[in-house]
Amino acid sequence: MEKRTLIYEGKAKQVFTTDNADVLWIHYLDQATALNGKRKEQIADKGRINSAISALLFNYLTAQGITNHHQQQLSPTDELVTKVKITPVEVVVRNFAAGHFVTRYGVAPMMELRPAVHEFYYKSDELDDPFMNDEQLVALNIAPQRELDELRVIADQVNVILTEAFRAIDIKLIDFKLEFGYTATNQLILADELSPDNMRLVDLNTGASLDKDIFRQQSGDVLTGYKIVLERLTNYLTANQL
Amino acid sequence: MEKRTLIYEGKAKQVFTTDNADVLWIHYLDQATALNGKRKEQIADKGRINSAISALLFNYLTAQGITNHHQQQLSPTDELVTKVKITPVEVVVRNFAAGHFVTRYGVAPMMELRPAVHEFYYKSDELDDPFMNDEQLVALNIAPQRELDELRVIADQVNVILTEAFRAIDIKLIDFKLEFGYTATNQLILADELSPDNMRLVDLNTGASLDKDIFRQQSGDVLTGYKIVLERLTNYLTANQL
Ligand SMILES: Nc1ncnc2c1ncn2[C@@H]1O[C@H](COP(=O)(O)OP(=O)(O)OP(=O)(O)O)[C@@H](O)[C@H]1O
Ligand SMILES: Nc1ncnc2c1ncn2[C@@H]1O[C@H](COP(=O)(O)OP(=O)(O)OP(=O)(O)O)[C@@H](O)[C@H]1O
Ligand SMILES: [Mg+2]
Ligand SMILES: [Mg+2]
Repeated sequence: MEKRTLIYEGKAKQVFTTDNADVLWIHYLDQATALNGKRKEQIADKGRINSAISALLFNYLTAQGITNHHQQQLSPTDELVTKVKITPVEVVVRNFAAGHFVTRYGVAPMMELRPAVHEFYYKSDELDDPFMNDEQLVALNIAPQRELDELRVIADQVNVILTEAFRAIDIKLIDFKLEFGYTATNQLILADELSPDNMRLVDLNTGASLDKDIFRQQSGDVLTGYKIVLERLTNYLTANQL
Repeated sequence: MEKRTLIYEGKAKQVFTTDNADVLWIHYLDQATALNGKRKEQIADKGRINSAISALLFNYLTAQGITNHHQQQLSPTDELVTKVKITPVEVVVRNFAAGHFVTRYGVAPMMELRPAVHEFYYKSDELDDPFMNDEQLVALNIAPQRELDELRVIADQVNVILTEAFRAIDIKLIDFKLEFGYTATNQLILADELSPDNMRLVDLNTGASLDKDIFRQQSGDVLTGYKIVLERLTNYLTANQL
């Protein structure tokens, strides 16, 4: 497979076309941003760790029956993925209250949310990814109701599978953000990235944050947590041949 | 009926108990606020006009089968209402894009929304009435799903009836906010107020704003529009014996 032109350079990844029109090449950057990109830092090795975690989780989801864009790891920081037309609706799933949710709705941090809460955000840089409800998304032709229903169903399945996998390695899955897209044959599948950049993860025993909150709050070496996640996931998934 | 103690003094109304435990006395104030109460002004005659419009619309809704709290007009600024336990979910119905909706979601002002959009806001002064989705409201025990479903159904019926009534008097109903509450027998009914303080209304012919936007934008005599609404509603409803 040949890497061709850079079509997107985002906060955490570069996306390239390949000689196959249905396949993209994703390169994970050693970069972290916060406050919607206003703060940006280079963090050596972050690309490798996120790429590895993402590949492990996508492969695990595939094994559990969740179709997703991941095809093949090419190098420690590069993967091939199925090209999709990303739907402009980001799905956030929350199992426990954290972050914005705590301040906006005045609830106790880590309050359990039962059933898990889904939130849709309209992917729009100019509008700062506003939170929207189903009826708004439908009326503004951002997504039809059947797509929103499907997003909820898949996000729920992903939540059950990931919550379980993380629990097995003593990690609590607080919340996470997913992106989806349509393949050439119009199938809606999970895409983008599954890493601590897009999840909140807490060590079940110590309560330590193992995700991007460390970076957001500038409270320590962000990669310490990421490395723990990678190590435990690797041990668990290989030990169990998952 | 005897007026007893003041139990609530809000931005636009005073609420008193009466000698009947199931009945409250609402007094409409000559007061307008904007920016969630940060700007406040006295506006002579506003109480009378809002009280009159509200009574007309509640009576009309009753005639059309929509149970609501309005019982009886006592004076030009006072009414008796069924006491309810207000549910902390405000329902906004939008037929056309205006206000926050335009800036937040980057759409053209007055863009038609089909089907009409419902939005739920959590009534909480400390939190500034945050916009929430169904799953959040359910997970935080603010309202059960069946209540949200019922709110949508009633709000839709109110929208159909009011849109039609306003169209008959050359007024476009852009959007409005409703409050609901549970009666002593646990029936969920429409409460609070139905006036240009809680609606956006536009003259179909001139495009002039006939509601509180005039006050919000400090762009003219707010009551001019309110008086037009009252006059046309009175003529229409009495002429048609509605
Ligand atoms: N399989 C895929 N096909 C096409 N685009 C994809 C696929 N997976 C992810 N993307 C897109 O590639 C980009 C990944 O880059 P990155 O995560 O760095 O973006 P970002 O800075 O988070 O910006 P954005 O706001 O666009 O998500 C995103 O725009 C994402 O939607
Ligand atoms: N039938 C009713 N029974 C009990 N309370 C009611 C009833 N109808 C309206 N209310 C409540 O009475 C108050 C009306 O006062 P007003 O409209 O001035 O309040 P407000 O300043 O808008 O404040 P709020 O944020 O509480 O709505 C509101 O709190 C409203 O929820
Ligand atoms: Mg991204
Ligand atoms: Mg009010």
